[in-house]
Parts: sequence; structure tokens; C-alpha cells
Amino acid sequence: MIGVGLIGTGFMGKCHALAWNSVGTVFGDVPRIKLVHLGEANDELAQRKGREFGFEKASGDWRAVVNDPEVDIVSVTSPNQFHPEMAIAALQAGKHVWCEKPMAPALAESQAMTEAARQSRKVAVLGYNYIQSPAFRHIRQLLDEKIIGDVNLVRIEMDEDFMADPDALFFWKHEAASGYGALDDFAVHPLSLISKLFGRVSRVMCDMAKPYADRQVAGGGRRAVETYDIASVLMRLENGIAGTLLVNRSAWGRKGRIAVQIFGSKGSIVFDQERFNELQLYVTSDRATEQGYRTILIAPHHKPYDRFIPAPGHGLGFNDLKIIECRELISKLEGKPAHIIDFDEGFEIERTVHAMADSFAKSAWVDVR
Amino acid sequence: MIGVGLIGTGFMGKCHALAWNSVGTVFGDVPRIKLVHLGEANDELAQRKGREFGFEKASGDWRAVVNDPEVDIVSVTSPNQFHPEMAIAALQAGKHVWCEKPMAPALAESQAMTEAARQSRKVAVLGYNYIQSPAFRHIRQLLDEKIIGDVNLVRIEMDEDFMADPDALFFWKHEAASGYGALDDFAVHPLSLISKLFGRVSRVMCDMAKPYADRQVAGGGRRAVETYDIASVLMRLENGIAGTLLVNRSAWGRKGRIAVQIFGSKGSIVFDQERFNELQLYVTSDRATEQGYRTILIAPHHKPYDRFIPAPGHGLGFNDLKIIECRELISKLEGKPAHIIDFDEGFEIERTVHAMADSFAKSAWVDVR
Amino acid sequence: MIGVGLIGTGFMGKCHALAWNSVGTVFGDVPRIKLVHLGEANDELAQRKGREFGFEKASGDWRAVVNDPEVDIVSVTSPNQFHPEMAIAALQAGKHVWCEKPMAPALAESQAMTEAARQSRKVAVLGYNYIQSPAFRHIRQLLDEKIIGDVNLVRIEMDEDFMADPDALFFWKHEAASGYGALDDFAVHPLSLISKLFGRVSRVMCDMAKPYADRQVAGGGRRAVETYDIASVLMRLENGIAGTLLVNRSAWGRKGRIAVQIFGSKGSIVFDQERFNELQLYVTSDRATEQGYRTILIAPHHKPYDRFIPAPGHGLGFNDLKIIECRELISKLEGKPAHIIDFDEGFEIERTVHAMADSFAKSAWVDVR
Amino acid sequence: MIGVGLIGTGFMGKCHALAWNSVGTVFGDVPRIKLVHLGEANDELAQRKGREFGFEKASGDWRAVVNDPEVDIVSVTSPNQFHPEMAIAALQAGKHVWCEKPMAPALAESQAMTEAARQSRKVAVLGYNYIQSPAFRHIRQLLDEKIIGDVNLVRIEMDEDFMADPDALFFWKHEAASGYGALDDFAVHPLSLISKLFGRVSRVMCDMAKPYADRQVAGGGRRAVETYDIASVLMRLENGIAGTLLVNRSAWGRKGRIAVQIFGSKGSIVFDQERFNELQLYVTSDRATEQGYRTILIAPHHKPYDRFIPAPGHGLGFNDLKIIECRELISKLEGKPAHIIDFDEGFEIERTVHAMADSFAKSAWVDVR
Repeated sequence: MIGVGLIGTGFMGKCHALAWNSVGTVFGDVPRIKLVHLGEANDELAQRKGREFGFEKASGDWRAVVNDPEVDIVSVTSPNQFHPEMAIAALQAGKHVWCEKPMAPALAESQAMTEAARQSRKVAVLGYNYIQSPAFRHIRQLLDEKIIGDVNLVRIEMDEDFMADPDALFFWKHEAASGYGALDDFAVHPLSLISKLFGRVSRVMCDMAKPYADRQVAGGGRRAVETYDIASVLMRLENGIAGTLLVNRSAWGRKGRIAVQIFGSKGSIVFDQERFNELQLYVTSDRATEQGYRTILIAPHHKPYDRFIPAPGHGLGFNDLKIIECRELISKLEGKPAHIIDFDEGFEIERTVHAMADSFAKSAWVDVR
Repeated sequence: MIGVGLIGTGFMGKCHALAWNSVGTVFGDVPRIKLVHLGEANDELAQRKGREFGFEKASGDWRAVVNDPEVDIVSVTSPNQFHPEMAIAALQAGKHVWCEKPMAPALAESQAMTEAARQSRKVAVLGYNYIQSPAFRHIRQLLDEKIIGDVNLVRIEMDEDFMADPDALFFWKHEAASGYGALDDFAVHPLSLISKLFGRVSRVMCDMAKPYADRQVAGGGRRAVETYDIASVLMRLENGIAGTLLVNRSAWGRKGRIAVQIFGSKGSIVFDQERFNELQLYVTSDRATEQGYRTILIAPHHKPYDRFIPAPGHGLGFNDLKIIECRELISKLEGKPAHIIDFDEGFEIERTVHAMADSFAKSAWVDVR
Repeated sequence: MIGVGLIGTGFMGKCHALAWNSVGTVFGDVPRIKLVHLGEANDELAQRKGREFGFEKASGDWRAVVNDPEVDIVSVTSPNQFHPEMAIAALQAGKHVWCEKPMAPALAESQAMTEAARQSRKVAVLGYNYIQSPAFRHIRQLLDEKIIGDVNLVRIEMDEDFMADPDALFFWKHEAASGYGALDDFAVHPLSLISKLFGRVSRVMCDMAKPYADRQVAGGGRRAVETYDIASVLMRLENGIAGTLLVNRSAWGRKGRIAVQIFGSKGSIVFDQERFNELQLYVTSDRATEQGYRTILIAPHHKPYDRFIPAPGHGLGFNDLKIIECRELISKLEGKPAHIIDFDEGFEIERTVHAMADSFAKSAWVDVR
Repeated sequence: MIGVGLIGTGFMGKCHALAWNSVGTVFGDVPRIKLVHLGEANDELAQRKGREFGFEKASGDWRAVVNDPEVDIVSVTSPNQFHPEMAIAALQAGKHVWCEKPMAPALAESQAMTEAARQSRKVAVLGYNYIQSPAFRHIRQLLDEKIIGDVNLVRIEMDEDFMADPDALFFWKHEAASGYGALDDFAVHPLSLISKLFGRVSRVMCDMAKPYADRQVAGGGRRAVETYDIASVLMRLENGIAGTLLVNRSAWGRKGRIAVQIFGSKGSIVFDQERFNELQLYVTSDRATEQGYRTILIAPHHKPYDRFIPAPGHGLGFNDLKIIECRELISKLEGKPAHIIDFDEGFEIERTVHAMADSFAKSAWVDVR
């Protein structure tokens, strides 16, 4: 039996609740999950969401969740700036922690979380769900098997358009206090993919840009935008692979694009999160006249798709990735190997992001470590 | 509070369980769902699946589910030939019924189910989940708004490859006793889409074919295949629209293809279930030099995608469609308008399939009614 | 040296002129081509086009072209109804003939042309250029090699939207005198592909439809449309393969779509003329976890692409297909094997189209021969 | 009448010959083209190609072409290192010059060519044919009309796989004497597109990489590779737009990819040369629920496609782009506005490439001018 606490009921809070709700039905071989305690900003919201999500208790004080003796693990899905305090409190209260990414706005806070996790000897993992898709996991297997030979280049783009409208009002994400911009919002996702496929980034050279210099303020007048919606990065990985990472949160038409291109000595792999039930593979072992990118539809033999659907090509959804992540988390709780990003690995990802920002500030290549 | 009974724990049984489990968390505004009683072929399996799926009771006799006084509605997900007996028993026991499609192998049985439903005055609906996808629902809205003008032609193909291997052994689906072949397996799905978009089919002209005349038998020797993996149908709808319906369950490379093409006087719509988070729209209202099929990614404004994910383009999965269907079913239980296929509408679909088979037998056009 | 006569300077006339102009430069190993005599509806137009196209002589009387002793072969690209008279006259004058498809509006006329060709013992071929694309030719080779095993089903659609506008005025193509409609305009193209890949059609069952019952007349008022923009056909080929042929010349959004799907016992092939520099191949010889449609870009090893461009994936154009056709025609003139459709084969194609129309009139299956 | 001289009969030589051969037939409104004199490396080859291509004279000495009084313009399609000498000689002999890109291996040579062109007052243009595609020309028009608002980011990738095979032998392109690598081979193409759409590049930051450190030598043993198959560049344009340029000539699976993404304040444009008869447009003026990338097929209203084919979506080929370029060149000869890249503009492109290489050498941002 696993007693679950949940803090936050927004996009990711609901996603965690769905995962905890479904992981047993999907996978079967997991302990019984008990939805114990839900925390939100106030009692009324907590009560309502507790009912909707099926939690036994609900309270307007997150500390009640963290300190609930029936709670074994706390899902932290609050806004990023609250992650450090909540995650550290939970760890210190002897709970396991499943925290949404990124860890924290400042690198020092991420480091504090990582240290708290080490000292607690509890499971402390991050919500990097894109690494869980069967297509991505199959890419990892293809690379392990050297199906495309030795990789020499990886290019990743991540683009959305939620900040693309120049007429949208100035809001907190345009303030420097919120971070660098697209770099914080997006770069950790592609870096989680790189981390799982290739390991650490060695050096970075970053440029950033603002599509719109200023924006209208709610009350009237205009205010200079302080964050960068666009970041473009040249990279070298520790294993010598060359790479580029291009992100843009003002990219009209892109909704959830994470476009990956991996080139090797015997083939290449192309993937786009907007069609994450497919992957493209080109191999030179095909006869020359029939070489071409194969569009592989995800099927039961691409684990753990089979736990959801026994027929090929029917498609998983974004929320299903969190269910898989939850299964991996449970494996980790059980002391088994788990395909998941813990605080140690997450900290390296965040260190890389800060190195990128540093590179831009210095207009020079920066070593990550 | 809704007390749920579930019969069957295969592909669709699990899918129903996941839907009942998640519908509250996803939609919020639904009564509390109580997973009361699960029925399977034997006690051991029932107990195990009951635990995995979170049901309170479990038994090896489906009648125990149907007669459980705590059960308000029964999900019937057993093999097709058991649908009539189970659904009718449940209706007669005063339960609502949510039965997987198709209703039954024989038309007379479907008719009996339909009559039992009418007499019971209970909610009796079918599991046609493809009509629930936000993209499909948006197509319906586009047609209602006459965005592509008056429709004059609809073409639908449904293809998979689970029977494409000529070296696979003869099994029960190759026997005439199992039905006509692809016509039963597949045609009801496209017909459910047609029913929701355009209404009833008027006349049909059908051809059927067998890719493989005989197959190896498990014990040795070969046996003639009695069912048809391929069916191709010319149609006229009651509203005058011309159409074609092409199905193939031996179509190598196709996994869950339901390819729809709708042509109207001011544009056209193209959709493929293999990429069901997208739809293609061509409209003549665009400037001539910029006319082209738009690939529209499903987003929160395509209801009820927003209940799952607040960000566009992140993708629903096949199992999510069943959650939406469950929400529609609950609307129907609540006496509200519901986008769902009840036994009456389902019976018309099955009547159309049988008319197709009849047309092939007669080698002539056949009126559906 | 080949002396060329050309009748007609419209879409196809220009296309022939370009082919005659370029075939030597592209292929190298052909006799010298001399553009001798161009014929058009009047002297002025003939003179102007003669200059533009580089012909030595030009005249407003097509018989001057046909009877010019310097002319060895006559390209007939005039409107269809003039084909029989011109082609027969040319053959009788001892010229080879390269006539655009279709042969003639009436089957009897096509037959007369075919007989004239036989008697003349001259080369008499038709302008079915879609069979010339390297991708199509590669499909033929893949089938010959049994890469997808034994074919059991072929589906072809041909759609354009040049008659899709309901507000366009009534014109001659809406009159019954112009033929059946989409069947004449389009069906010969897919049938040419079928002829080259699979041979003859055995039986057909055809339905036809009119998207728009009447249209505005130039002078005022409305007039009933007499031809059918939509035709849908069930087919059986002589070799037993099942098939469908669906055509629509009012299909908004489709510009030059000829979508081919070929299913076999070991794979499938998908092709669309709108992207005719690509083909899709699915084979079961790939490892299961990596099976998927390959998008094969046409490259120098797909002959005769190499004669145009030595680098892969750069793309041929529609007009290049006519240059390849011209090369094949020259092979035939030289007495060598040629991948081209002569009057005999073309007559079988037209017989099939007329059988389709007959089937629709009778509302029944019709044997082609 | 234009008297044409051609030097070189390889990939581009043939392409020029085809263009000169067809430009009159395609466009009609051009002076008569006379194929006067062809030059190749020796008399035998010159004679043979002269016959194939339809030239009146042919010689093994290119100076005979340059000095032929009947020649008005010289197409220079020899290997790059010969461009300066030949182009300058032709200009000094009073001929117009149509030279293939890039101008020359060394920037000083390009500069010498540019100065020779200025002094000659003759037309001197470069063979940047990708700017001629109707889709690209339409992109330019869309930008001029501000259909996607103000552009803030452009990303271009150019990838092919002709050097991707690690088992291919060491050859001259692996020697430093041949240039930098992919930067010379590819970067000029994307830069030509940028030049026509946005103007000049201001600053660059470049990284380069070698997929394979060494290669087998023909006679035995291995030799270190001295050139870089991969280059990745951060850019700023003079007008403030941010950009990236990524090239790779060892990119397995890519054949002629030039993938362009242009993001603006009101939409975005996506284009890939591998499907250059299409372009993708996303605009925010569409209703929110129907926004999506439109796949626009090139049609007669995208000039000058109509001069080749009167029907939409039938597709131009790579060689057709050179015919359009030839028409633009003729406009320039006629003193009319021409969409073409002359030596001045070409020199700026080459200056940018050399700045990229310089940036890599210095590991720092470099100003182009």
C-alpha cells in the first residue's frame, strides 16, 4: 500500500492525480495506491478538488499533507518557486518526493533540494514525462543496439506559441525575476532527453533573443520585456557528440513541438513530440533502392504501450506518459531499476541551463561543470 | 453516486475500468463513481482483476454482477456472442447498460437487445468511442456550421493488418460461423462516424474478397478460409450524399487507420484515426494563393480536450476516448443531451452491415431498410 | 534524324515540344531531333508558336503537318474529338503517331484508330505520362521482384478540384455530349497504371454522382448538369486481384492526386502523384519493432532519374515525365523494348471506361470483354 | 538573338544546356537562343556533348568559347577552382557571364571576379537556382505583404548524406585544400535564400565538427580527415532578426533537404526543398479553432509555374528552376528588373561563409563586414 499526498491541482496536479488513479489498473503489478491527502492554496479549493480527484483528506495548508503520517510520498506540483521549500520539507518529514520539473528557479535552490534528497535517503524524482513515451524509449533501445551506428550529431528544437501574440499583455513571465525565458521554460525538456540518450553536456554557446521589445501593460502604457522567448544553443556533449538546442516560446503554429534529429554512422532517427506515437528511422542496412525514413507507429512490442492497449497504432496520450512515469517511480520505491530522472540527474540538467544563460551573458563558450 | 458493474477484463474491459476510474478526476462535475462488482470467466481471474482495477467485489459468475443491488450500470465487454444474453439480463434486472460494439453477431439478436432496452426504459448505450475524439467532434461542428458548404461525397477506409500474415494459422475468425469477416469487425466503426455526421445509409452495393484462399491448420494440413478480409462498398445516404466504404483487415502496414474524406461545395475535410489528434481542413474562403489543407492540432478549444490538458497539441490517447464516452454516458444517465450511440442507433448501424453482406450475396444494390 | 510534326500548342502541345527539345540533351543516346512542322488552328497562332517552340515550319492547316515529307512522326495534342481524324490521317500518310490520351470520345473511334495503327505497321503510342515517373517504374520493379509478395488488393483514387466551384458557369463539359464526366477525364490515368502493373480489368461495378444538379448559364438562368463529376467503381482484375477506383473532379483541395494503395501478402506500397518524387513501402522483412512505411525519395538508382540529375532527392517535374515518355517512344521507333502504351493497350483502357459507364447505366456488374 | 557559350557538361553544365534549350518554349517572350559553342576538357568529350546538347561548335579549349565572336554570354559550370579565371576572361572578352555558385574557393578570388564584373559593365550572375522556385518566390511575397507580420526568427538547415558513409574512401573533399567542408558546399544555398528574403547577415558564431576523424585511403592505411562535414551557426541579420544555420553533408537519410522555418508576429512559414512544390503557412487570422499549418501546393497563380503547367499541383522539377533562372537572366540582359543573384550579392554571401569559418577558428562571434 502506498499512501499518496498531492500538493497542487493545476495542469500537473491533475496529471499526477490521474496517474495515481490509473497506475494500478494499467499495470496490475503494483501495490495498492491510497489517495490520502490533497493540499491546495485554500480549504475550499482543496475540498472541491479532493472530492473530484478521490482523495480522502484535503486541506488548505500544504504542511498538513507533508506531515500526514498516512502519506508515504508527496507529489509536488505547485508553481516552481515553491518546489524547494515543499520538497525539502517533505524529504525531511521522511516522505518520498515526486516533484514537477524544473526543480527551482535558482541553481542554489536546486542544489539544496539535491542535498536534502541525498541526506534523506528517500526516493526523490522529477516529472520529466517526455522520456517515458514508448517511442522515446525505443529510440534509446535503437541507440543501445547501435542500429544507427555511432552517433555524431544531435539537433533538438522545442517550440510552442503560447507567448507568440504581440498584443498579449505584459505578465510575470516577462519579468527578469521569473528567469531567463524560454531557456527555463523549455530547455530542461530536451536536456532530459539528451541526458537519457547520451549523458551530460560538456560545453555550451548560447544566443537569446526577444521577439517583442515591449508589451502593453494592463493598466495602460507599455513596459520593456525582460525575458527572452528565443534561445539558440551550440553544444558539445561529454561523449564528444556535437549538438544544437533551439527553443522558442513565441513560435506561431507550434503547440508541443520537440523535434529531435539524431545522426549516426549507419542511419538516423527523427522524432517530434507533436506526433509522439510515431518515430522515423533511416538505416543503411536496407537495400539502397528502398532506403527511406520509416514511419514506425507505436505498438505493443514497444513497451509499455502493451499495458495500455493490446493493438498497435491506436495511440497513447500525454497523460498516459505520467502513468508510465508513476510506474517507474514505483519501481524505484521497490528498489528496482527505474527509467526516471532523480534529483541528482535533474540537478545536472539545471546546471546546464544556467551555463547556457551564463554563456549568453558572456557571449562565449562556457563549460557546464 | 453511481455503482458500477463490469463484465470482462480484456482489451475493452480494462478500457472501461480506466474510464470509470478517471472520469471524475478528468471532468470533476460528475457523481461519485463506485466500482462495485467485477465479473470474469472464473473466480481466480475475477479476484485478481478486481484487485488490479479497484473493484470492491469480484465473481466468476456474471449474473452476480447483473443482480448485485449496489450496481446501477453494467459495462458489458465480453466477447460479442455473449452481449445479447448479458445485456438483456442486465436491462431486465433494472440496470443501465454500457455494451461494447457490435451488439451481436446476428441481426435478430441486436433487435432483441434493442427491444429489451426500449421496454426497460433504462439507458442502453454502445461503446463507439471513435465518435468521441475532439477532432471528430470538431468535424461535426464544422459540418453543422457549413464551413465546407453542402457535402456531396464521403469516402471512408478502415484498415488494419492483424490478419495480413498468410502464414498465420487458421483460427475461429476464418470460420463462417464467426460472421462475414472485415465487414463485422470493421464496418460498424466507419458507420458510427457516418451516423453521427450524416445520418442513415440508404442503399449499398458490396464486394468482398479473400486475400488467402486457405490457411494452415494447427494440427497439420490446410483449410479453406470462409470469411472475407476485404470488403468494398458503394453507398448512398438517405440525405443523398454518395459514399464509399472500404475495409481490409489484411492491410499490411495499417494499424488503426480510419481514413475519412469529406467533400463539400466550399471545402473538404480529411481525417485519419492513426493521427487522431489532427484533422485536415481545406476551405475556399482562404485567398486563392494560400489555399491548402490545414493541419489542425487538437487544442483546449476543441472540447473536451481542455478537461484533459490545458495546453494545445499535447495529444489525447485511445483510452481517453473511452473516458469522454463515459462522461457522455453519465450525461445520458442525468437526462441531459448526450453525444453517444444508443441501442436504437446502434441497431441501424448493424442493419446496414447486414444489408452489405446481403448485397454481396446477391451481387446487387440492396436497400438498407 | 527524326523529323517531328506537332499538332496543337496547348497544355500538352507545349509539353510535347519541351520533350522533343530536351530528350537529346537529357538522354544523349538518341538520334538528332529536328522540329519540322507545327500545326495550329490558324496561321497567326501557328507562326507565333512555331517561333517560340523552335519549329522550322508552321501552318494553320494540320494536314500540312501530316503530309510534310520531312515529318517522320506526328505529335497529336489537339482536343480529344479531333484525335481520330488526325491520328488516322497521319498513320495513313505513313507517319508514326504520338497521340495524347484519351484516344477518342467514342469507343468505335478508338477502335478505328487501333485498326489504322495495325494496318499502318507504324509506331502508334499514347501520352500516358504518369507511367513514366521513376517512382512508378520502381513500384513495377518491386512488384516484379515480389517484394510485397502476392498482391491481393489495389485501391486507386484520382481527384482534382477544377470543377468543384458550384458558382462556376455551365460549360461544355457539363453537357452529355462531352462524355460521362470524371470517368472520361480521369479514369484512363489510373487504368494506365493498373494496365502496366497488373494487366487487364475483368469486371466492373460503377456508381456515379453529380455534386451539383444544375449550374448558372452565362446568359442567365440555370441548366441541369448532364455529366457526373464523381465516379466510384468496384473492380476485379483478370488476374483475380480485387480493386476499387474512385474519381472526383469536384474534390476541393485535391490538385493532381492519384493515390495508389497496393496490398500484398508480404507488404504494401502507397503512392500519391501529388508527391510523385516519393513512394511509401512497407515490408514485413523488417524487424517487427521497426516495421513502418518507408518514404523513399527518388534517386539516381531509380532509372532514368539519373539522366536528369545525378544527386538524389532533388525532384523531377511533371514535364520531365513527358521527356521520359519521348525517350521510350524513340526506343520503340528503334525497335527496342519500350515502357509505353500503344494503341492496342490504350484501346483496352478505353474499353474498360466504357464498361464502367455501361455498368452504371445498368446498375449491375459488367464484364469488360 | 542570344549566342550562348557553355563551359562544362557535368551536373550543372547539362542543367544549363537544358535551360537554354527550353527557355524559349516555356516562356515564349524571349529572344531566339542560339547554342553556339561548347567547351570541355578535351576535344572528344566536347564534340560528343556538343552533339547531345545541340551546340553548333565544340572545342577542348575553353578559351575558344570565351573568345568566340558569336558568343554573347558564357555559362561557366566547371569545377569551382576554375571559375575565377574563366569568368574574368569572359568578362574581359566582353561577354556576359552566368557562373555556377560558389564563386571561388578563396574570398580574394571572389572579390576579383566581382571587380571584373563591375569594370566590364556586363551582366554577371550566379547560379543560385533555389531562389527561383515558385514556392520560395511566394514566401518572399508573403513576407512583403506582412502576412506573417514582422519576422523575428529564421532557422535554416541544409542536409545531405553523400559523405555519410564512414567506409567511403578518403578523397579530395577531405583535404583542407578543398575548403572548410559543409560550410562551402552547403552554406551558400541557405544564405542565398536569406539574402533574397531578409538581406545581409551581420554577425555569426560558428561551430564545426567531423563525424569521422579519419578515413581509409585507396592504396591502404588511413588518413586524418581535414574538413568538417557538420557546421552549426548562430546568426544575427542586419535587420535584427535572429537566426540559425545548420548544415551537415553526412546526414544519413537527407537527400536535398533545405528546411526553412520563419517565425513572425502573426504567423509562420515552413518550407523544405525536398518537397519544393509545397509550402506550409500558419496565420493567426484564421479562426482560432481552425488555425493550423496549411500545405499549399504550387499552382499557376504562383508565378511562373503557369508558364510550365496550366494545372495546379502537378509539380516542377529541379531542372525547371534553372529554366526560370535563365528567364531572369534574360530579363537582366534586357535591362529589366530581375530576381537573380549577381556577383555583388554573391560576394556578400561568400564573405559571410568566410566569416563563419573565421568564427570557428576564433571560437567567438565575428562581424561579417
